[in-house]
Amino acid sequence: MLAKYVPILNWGRGYRRDQFGRDLIAAVIVTIMLIPQSLAYALLAGLPPEAGLYASILPLVAYAIFGSSSSLAVGPVAVVSLMTATAVGRLAAEGTADYASIAMGLALLSGGILALMGLFRLGFVANFLSHPVIAGFITASGLIIAASQLGGILGIPSHGHAMPELLASIWDNLVRFNPYTLAVGSASLAALVWIRLDMKRRLVALGVPVAIATFMVRAGPVVVVLVAIAASAIFELGGKGVALVGDVPPGLPMLTIPNVSIDFLIVLIVPAFIISIVGFVESISVAQTLAAKKRERIDPDQELIGLGAANIAAAMGSGYPVTGGFARSVVNHDAGAATPAAGIFTAIGIAVATLALTPFLALLPKATLSATIIVAVLSLVDLSILKKAYTYAMADFIGVAVTLCVTLVFGVEIGISLGVAASILIFLYRTSKPHTAVVGRVPGTEHFRNVLRYSVETTPEILSLRVDESLYFANARFLEDCIYARVAEHPEIRHVILMCPAVNAIDMSALESLEAINERLRDLGIHFHLTEVKGPVMDRLERSDFLKHLTGQVFLSQHEAIAELGGAGAVLRPREASHVAS
Amino acid sequence: MLAKYVPILNWGRGYRRDQFGRDLIAAVIVTIMLIPQSLAYALLAGLPPEAGLYASILPLVAYAIFGSSSSLAVGPVAVVSLMTATAVGRLAAEGTADYASIAMGLALLSGGILALMGLFRLGFVANFLSHPVIAGFITASGLIIAASQLGGILGIPSHGHAMPELLASIWDNLVRFNPYTLAVGSASLAALVWIRLDMKRRLVALGVPVAIATFMVRAGPVVVVLVAIAASAIFELGGKGVALVGDVPPGLPMLTIPNVSIDFLIVLIVPAFIISIVGFVESISVAQTLAAKKRERIDPDQELIGLGAANIAAAMGSGYPVTGGFARSVVNHDAGAATPAAGIFTAIGIAVATLALTPFLALLPKATLSATIIVAVLSLVDLSILKKAYTYAMADFIGVAVTLCVTLVFGVEIGISLGVAASILIFLYRTSKPHTAVVGRVPGTEHFRNVLRYSVETTPEILSLRVDESLYFANARFLEDCIYARVAEHPEIRHVILMCPAVNAIDMSALESLEAINERLRDLGIHFHLTEVKGPVMDRLERSDFLKHLTGQVFLSQHEAIAELGGAGAVLRPREASHVAS
Repeated sequence: MLAKYVPILNWGRGYRRDQFGRDLIAAVIVTIMLIPQSLAYALLAGLPPEAGLYASILPLVAYAIFGSSSSLAVGPVAVVSLMTATAVGRLAAEGTADYASIAMGLALLSGGILALMGLFRLGFVANFLSHPVIAGFITASGLIIAASQLGGILGIPSHGHAMPELLASIWDNLVRFNPYTLAVGSASLAALVWIRLDMKRRLVALGVPVAIATFMVRAGPVVVVLVAIAASAIFELGGKGVALVGDVPPGLPMLTIPNVSIDFLIVLIVPAFIISIVGFVESISVAQTLAAKKRERIDPDQELIGLGAANIAAAMGSGYPVTGGFARSVVNHDAGAATPAAGIFTAIGIAVATLALTPFLALLPKATLSATIIVAVLSLVDLSILKKAYTYAMADFIGVAVTLCVTLVFGVEIGISLGVAASILIFLYRTSKPHTAVVGRVPGTEHFRNVLRYSVETTPEILSLRVDESLYFANARFLEDCIYARVAEHPEIRHVILMCPAVNAIDMSALESLEAINERLRDLGIHFHLTEVKGPVMDRLERSDFLKHLTGQVFLSQHEAIAELGGAGAVLRPREASHVAS
Repeated sequence: MLAKYVPILNWGRGYRRDQFGRDLIAAVIVTIMLIPQSLAYALLAGLPPEAGLYASILPLVAYAIFGSSSSLAVGPVAVVSLMTATAVGRLAAEGTADYASIAMGLALLSGGILALMGLFRLGFVANFLSHPVIAGFITASGLIIAASQLGGILGIPSHGHAMPELLASIWDNLVRFNPYTLAVGSASLAALVWIRLDMKRRLVALGVPVAIATFMVRAGPVVVVLVAIAASAIFELGGKGVALVGDVPPGLPMLTIPNVSIDFLIVLIVPAFIISIVGFVESISVAQTLAAKKRERIDPDQELIGLGAANIAAAMGSGYPVTGGFARSVVNHDAGAATPAAGIFTAIGIAVATLALTPFLALLPKATLSATIIVAVLSLVDLSILKKAYTYAMADFIGVAVTLCVTLVFGVEIGISLGVAASILIFLYRTSKPHTAVVGRVPGTEHFRNVLRYSVETTPEILSLRVDESLYFANARFLEDCIYARVAEHPEIRHVILMCPAVNAIDMSALESLEAINERLRDLGIHFHLTEVKGPVMDRLERSDFLKHLTGQVFLSQHEAIAELGGAGAVLRPREASHVAS
């Protein structure tokens, strides 16, 4: 029973030596990758760099205990860091002790929300984030993050968590750029871009084995950080106006409970919820992709518990909200991680690195961290989604475009909220005007097809209408309009048959519309029939009064209905398209 | 072109003498019915009684020009009056000049919103109010309105627009009830109830012709008002603590533009929108019911313009938000109204009555108006909807219950908003876990059925899955889970076939899920096929890359797929239910 919620009790019991070896190697590689990213993302979140390292220790242990993916690597990620900055920035100034406490409070709330959602099996809530909304949101976030780091590269102050404010503040301060900062920043940027795009090819060309070249590419950013620290010391960059990280408390953080007032926590509930959902969606997609490769299964509700535990651990270990990262999880998987134990070893690695790095971090130029962030997030930007969505369906294009534009202009929280609202409204709008077809019999068969597409036989006194959608509140009135319009146009109609092979559900609104249709048709002396009603739909109709008052019948097949209602003497004639234009 | 938006140009041109006669008779009857209701609903809205009469003059003329229903009678109605009181009461104190101006501003905004929705053909927005939500909302509103008038009957002050506050204020003041007010109130109530329930039967039993008896029942409330005024004068009730209507400005109102600050208008936008939608839904259902009886059609978008014009007229004629009323429209229809001209004649009737009544209104006890309201709204209360919804479907029951309870406890605006949100979420939740079935062939046929319900043949290396729902963002991930789970359980699977006869649409989220499924199955050496894809869905898939990367094929029928994939040597065996339990 307990093992259901604490997966480590399952895999931990049978932990083998070969798994240990694989996990250890993966942990070393992920640790090296995670160090510069942790420092940089903390800066993006408006926190001191060590907060990023702290957020990469306890949360990894907590996830290893409660999480269900053997490949997922959790920790600070770019988008969640931006969202943290947006939420916390409203309540405190960056660099204050309050700011750090509120970020911890946000992690606590987010962890609580995730864990509760997991316990109550509410993982489906994440489904309301459609692909177009996520794609638009991630791209817009990537652009905002890149813009937010331009100031760091130039050595000028910039502020804001959305494009207009950010660009205006960069523009206003542009002339005050610091040449030394710009030199460090652009050198770091150039080095990181080269490492990412070109280094592996060069090394392999020089005869370095691919595995070692791959490792060196992953270690590259750490080298850039070390070189930047050395340059900072040698050239005394701090005295030349280059912003440095500054003193960092030595050692590891104590376990604490975040010191945040209830008032702040209440204000943080909505941002914490949004961060939780976005983080969960980002994490679960990676976890599922990697699990599928191993023919493993991920339980989304257990993932919620795992991520919840990781965030609560982040709150207690002086961190800030974390989630599963895409790039690092893929690296973890590729490096051969066999169990979540790899996360525990990574945490140990980060803890050791924190102790070793702390004395040197003070000299690290912030511009190098800005460069790290820019290189990392540009891979998030994918504007091709706009074209893809445009080609596929206007509804999806609107979803992407609304999310992208609103996020850029008004920031992450409003952006994703309006994106979700837009995609739900578009879906409801689409299903509120379902595809309908007047059908007739394909001559000589028992098949019935759209009169507009096929040459079919119909009887003037029978209207056969097929609706290709479940009937529910958003389209109930549409169905009424549809039937009344045709009946008003064709006074010769004596029978209306609603063909329901694609009606997967009928809710009470639609039931009342069917009752209204039945009643109004009765007043006009017209019988109302249903055909091809699905089993579960029929079960439900039988629980209502509808069938008792139905003026017509429910036929198993449309053919049966026409055979009975059309009678032997009915005149069947090919229908002209103009006859049904309306 | 113009005639499209101004229906009077159509029917007005051919207006005939016989129509005039029918419209005139209907107008007389509706006028008599409308007088006491207008006075009472104005009181409910927190306005002086004459505002109700004013709201029954110009709006009726405006609707007659722009509206499309020949039966609809517009004017002040109970629910919209309560909503007006709720919205305006937040900004000004009842009885002040500001209060009346803000109510006019609300009518102006509401009229503008309705007219714009009509011009942009946004009538479908009303579809988002499901039947359960409307039913719960109307019942709760009726109960709140009845409770709000208890104080008037008892002669004690009461305040609040939701149950807890109303009941508490009545309870607190109960001991201070005024016996004279209670006498007038309960006598009025008794008289009105008798008129409604018993009078017609008695009159007919006395030999009065049914038509005359019906007319007398409708005139009854006016007689009660006149008797109450007479009693008030004779017994000098005003001096005995009975609240009277008090002095009313003589004559008709001047045409004005509401004097409301922009700040107030901004605050009123959301309430005005909610009032517009609720008013529109109430109005359109009556209009459509009555139109169907005449085999006429109502254009919902033209109705929006008609109601918009009516509300703008209400704003300019010292009124407050109006809409089509149920009872009075039915009376108008039954009395034989032939064209919207009946509304113009009713407006003239109310104008004449206003001029004639004004001198006497000062003496009318408010308790009589409270009694009028209580009798009118109790017909709105229908708790049987709870039972009906409970029997039919839990989703609909939750919709009714949430709307009903939240409206009672927190008032109309929060009530209807949460009701709508709940019904949308329930719908998304339901479709996010669609009905799926593993299918097999009914031996000796080309039919495929659920393996759990039928004895069918399957092949171990082929998984045939039928999904009975459109595929879209809310269920895309469910589909992935569903397929991965079965594939993980049955490593012998070599082909996955998705049967799509009930898939009416595939949005981009679902497309990306299908792409992910295809890719992950490919990694496992499994082919992915689709069968029975609908025409419009296939058209869209062809506009994407999906079919290019599909590892399997798209078959026209499931039979064809099995025939080709199963091969001659495949072992077909009856499937055991245990084999698919998951």
